[in-house]
Amino acid sequence: MKRTVIGGDIGGTHARFAIVDEAKNIISTEKIRIRHTGSAQDFLEQIVSALEKVLNTARARDCDVQAIGLGIAGKVDSERGIVIFSPNIPEARNLTVAEKICSRVNMRVFIDNDANAFGRGEVWAGDGALFKDWLGITLGTGVGGCLVLSGKVWTGEEGIGFAAEIGHTTVYPGGLQCLCGKLGCLEAYASEGGIIRMIQRQNIFPEKQVSTSRQLYELALTGDERALELFKIAGKALGVAIANAFTLLGIRKAIIGGGVSRAWVFMEPATKDALREHMSMLDLDEIILKTSTLGDTAALLGAAKLALDGLAGTHPRK
Amino acid sequence: MKRTVIGGDIGGTHARFAIVDEAKNIISTEKIRIRHTGSAQDFLEQIVSALEKVLNTARARDCDVQAIGLGIAGKVDSERGIVIFSPNIPEARNLTVAEKICSRVNMRVFIDNDANAFGRGEVWAGDGALFKDWLGITLGTGVGGCLVLSGKVWTGEEGIGFAAEIGHTTVYPGGLQCLCGKLGCLEAYASEGGIIRMIQRQNIFPEKQVSTSRQLYELALTGDERALELFKIAGKALGVAIANAFTLLGIRKAIIGGGVSRAWVFMEPATKDALREHMSMLDLDEIILKTSTLGDTAALLGAAKLALDGLAGTHPRK
Repeated sequence: MKRTVIGGDIGGTHARFAIVDEAKNIISTEKIRIRHTGSAQDFLEQIVSALEKVLNTARARDCDVQAIGLGIAGKVDSERGIVIFSPNIPEARNLTVAEKICSRVNMRVFIDNDANAFGRGEVWAGDGALFKDWLGITLGTGVGGCLVLSGKVWTGEEGIGFAAEIGHTTVYPGGLQCLCGKLGCLEAYASEGGIIRMIQRQNIFPEKQVSTSRQLYELALTGDERALELFKIAGKALGVAIANAFTLLGIRKAIIGGGVSRAWVFMEPATKDALREHMSMLDLDEIILKTSTLGDTAALLGAAKLALDGLAGTHPRK
Repeated sequence: MKRTVIGGDIGGTHARFAIVDEAKNIISTEKIRIRHTGSAQDFLEQIVSALEKVLNTARARDCDVQAIGLGIAGKVDSERGIVIFSPNIPEARNLTVAEKICSRVNMRVFIDNDANAFGRGEVWAGDGALFKDWLGITLGTGVGGCLVLSGKVWTGEEGIGFAAEIGHTTVYPGGLQCLCGKLGCLEAYASEGGIIRMIQRQNIFPEKQVSTSRQLYELALTGDERALELFKIAGKALGVAIANAFTLLGIRKAIIGGGVSRAWVFMEPATKDALREHMSMLDLDEIILKTSTLGDTAALLGAAKLALDGLAGTHPRK
């Protein structure tokens, strides 16, 4: 039997799972839609039931699953296996996810923030391996971030439950309202949710419904000036946030992922303009900005690597 | 003979030196004013001549000096011992300071950025020892910063020559002009230089000359509303920058030093307001902000520790 682990990526609307072997091969995937009833028990049942299905698949494929790693959108205490708080999975607040799932599927479970899983995946199987020190940014429903310092995913002060939350750094004090309750966060400008809220608030497309960043990207491809302007605003905000992160950390490389990053071609010039405007410690030609080549699978592979690290006893701390 | 090292703090206008023993005692200090002729040779001569004086003092005091550590204001490649660029010591650009001084005084020389020396000093002899992960901010002529992560001073990507330059993170895009050439840097609001430039530009004290942060502090003590407002502006900008740093790093502790921090009592309420306004990942009561208890000596002790680490072979990298 083949030695494998399961990697999972649990967001607010969907959860995805993959059986992954030590050679980074994805053997099988599974995706479910999450129903939110407000009950932690209901949330766990959906995850456990999906995992049981994946474990059945594994047996059928002659795979020996040794552990489970889960990247979860939210503030996660990786060491204790607890979701502290997740804006998009509110029923999971203070939930001992690792222990509860472990007791149901009888297998070791390791959890981390989903953007950290993205970082781990990039280091293991993507361009992250090329760099020792870099910032990862996922432009999805929200904006997630990860920091890789000296080759390791930085998880913040012990027990604090978050790190690299670049989406909630302030780019424009007093600016647009973010879902987190503050004004001017990067997420309000450069996430799918933030961009769609800008569109709705200002009724930017009165003649049609634009409710996803993919639709907006397709409009930009047709040369629609409004779509291009929105990606420019997003790109500029991103440049301010990256400039601050590079200046603060003494790093100069970033990998950008998430659905909105498919429109990178429309954001990049504005991001670079903002970097030039806001960064005194580095010249633009010293900087490397790359979009993720792993795409959707970065977080799944990273969650799998989390499980492998857990088995090897190198999880969870730096 | 007592085993000692020399720690030095080299700024734009002054250089200070101390003979320090392994028990963190400061045995003797020396301060010189630096004349800038534009010649690297002249700059080095002044440092070497001061060091020779300190070495004479050491011999007279029966101290065996084993190495020299220097904190230098600017972008420093600690590993190669080179000052890459210093806005306040322009003649030192690309100067192989460590090697050149070493060949003159015949002793091992280690160099680092001055704010990193502050951090090292706080870890060795100050409150920095209480924390594993923290941000240091020096509010002096400019604004310097250091980052201590997992108990070690973070020096950025190998060879990049800077880290923790919080003074040049943007707090207000499009805001006040900073000496670095960019707009809206923290340094333009919260350094002595930035505050004095605000005073001059707006002629805030037409009836008297206010040219130091100490004078401004003394005015604030008398209840002068203009002085209080300036410290409030500085405190608020500082809060925005700290909020962004904490959010980006997953840390929650800061130690604030430098001359302007003597007015901390007038800045603190605004800093806390800004933290409350801009930080969604932490509540205010989870945060620890302290002013340095070592004061002026933090950077000297840190430079001495740099020398001791160098002797022990643990310098310069993380």
